[in-house]
Amino acid sequence: MKRFVMQIEYDGSNYAGFQLQPSDPTVQGALEQALEHIYHCPVRIFGSGRTDAGVHAHYQIVHFDPPRDLAKFNLKAALNSLLRPDIRVIHYALAEKDFHARFSAKERVYKYRIHTCDTAINRLYSWQIRQSLALKDLQTCADFLHGDHDFTSFCSAKAVVSHKRCIITHCSWEKLDQELIFNISANRFLHSMVRSLVGTMVNVGKGYLSPEDFNNIFKAENRLAGALTAPPQGLSLMHVNYEQPIAWEE
Amino acid sequence: MKRFVMQIEYDGSNYAGFQLQPSDPTVQGALEQALEHIYHCPVRIFGSGRTDAGVHAHYQIVHFDPPRDLAKFNLKAALNSLLRPDIRVIHYALAEKDFHARFSAKERVYKYRIHTCDTAINRLYSWQIRQSLALKDLQTCADFLHGDHDFTSFCSAKAVVSHKRCIITHCSWEKLDQELIFNISANRFLHSMVRSLVGTMVNVGKGYLSPEDFNNIFKAENRLAGALTAPPQGLSLMHVNYEQPIAWEE
Repeated sequence: MKRFVMQIEYDGSNYAGFQLQPSDPTVQGALEQALEHIYHCPVRIFGSGRTDAGVHAHYQIVHFDPPRDLAKFNLKAALNSLLRPDIRVIHYALAEKDFHARFSAKERVYKYRIHTCDTAINRLYSWQIRQSLALKDLQTCADFLHGDHDFTSFCSAKAVVSHKRCIITHCSWEKLDQELIFNISANRFLHSMVRSLVGTMVNVGKGYLSPEDFNNIFKAENRLAGALTAPPQGLSLMHVNYEQPIAWEE
Repeated sequence: MKRFVMQIEYDGSNYAGFQLQPSDPTVQGALEQALEHIYHCPVRIFGSGRTDAGVHAHYQIVHFDPPRDLAKFNLKAALNSLLRPDIRVIHYALAEKDFHARFSAKERVYKYRIHTCDTAINRLYSWQIRQSLALKDLQTCADFLHGDHDFTSFCSAKAVVSHKRCIITHCSWEKLDQELIFNISANRFLHSMVRSLVGTMVNVGKGYLSPEDFNNIFKAENRLAGALTAPPQGLSLMHVNYEQPIAWEE
């Protein structure tokens, strides 16, 4: 039995997130439907992680076990001819049988974009805040996050997980003209975690909270401590790192 | 009588271009409808130039003469509350009475984006070509364009203008990862001119034409000499320069 791994990119605007839902359109649902069309039987795919409704992915990794071999077959071309243009297969490869898109992943990288001005062209890919934010205070907040911490305060109360500790390996804000970008890398992310971090930090950037208030919310390890959730369209999954880099066939 | 000048940004995906059309939605139509709602009478606007259906503008300039003064009035906030999110007023100012968005403009700046790979997220703002292009040959073509030339070969046959000479003040290709960007500045642009230049240069980048073939098409000064037109979504109006820089009020 073979296992295929694929790098995919999607614009999440029109999807109820990555994970399969009974009735709403999802990225997993679209990929499984296209694979069923190719193989004439249901095919289950596994992603490196879920992304919420409206969140984008520049680089998401999925794997699946093909139910049979197809002769002279370009998986990328076949899938891209069936998928809508807002989901694209970028690369694919044969994977080791023990490779798992989710469990083999060592690090995920996310980016959150904010425009501090009105913007028509970036409206589907950024949070328009229309006022300047104190970059220094945003970075002070980001500095609290480095290392191994409990993120209960910044995790959706709906999340069912054994523990809420994450190891943050990189975390910084950058400024490009009237755009602010939050970059964060970690071994794992909890439900709504990046959006909760950004929403709360933005209130620091506006001066409604101090960096110390932010740190107190963080250390409370309590979802009711006052975190706020940013809207989804500013968030994109940018990369997934594995112990072995994936050698793409195409 | 006053004259207002405004900087606007728009995502052209859902519009039949800038210029008013009898039945299709246009950027000019949307702005005039919003102004009519504010002033309770028809208001005519004038843009620095037309953009074709599906073309975007990061920076377009328009002017209009308000039919009367309104007390305690923020033009930007009023218009943005009425416009759809894909058209935004970025700045406005009172202009000199002899200022004209089109006739006072000295230079327009356009950008055309190409992705040489599949892309879901940039699909509405770039031409996906999915093969590499010879950047050196593209730049050789661009170098032919500098200065004062007749652009009949790269102008839609529908265009009704007194002459087809344009002065190209800047013209270059740049490469960012798997993206190629064509930047061009000129005193004026003809109908479909940037898209015709890009479409024809791309055939040079693919090796179907040589840079000399491109120059022969250019020098033929004939629309039937073989130019090809690139799709609209890769093109954006980036700036309009005036003799006097505009001092924005907000």
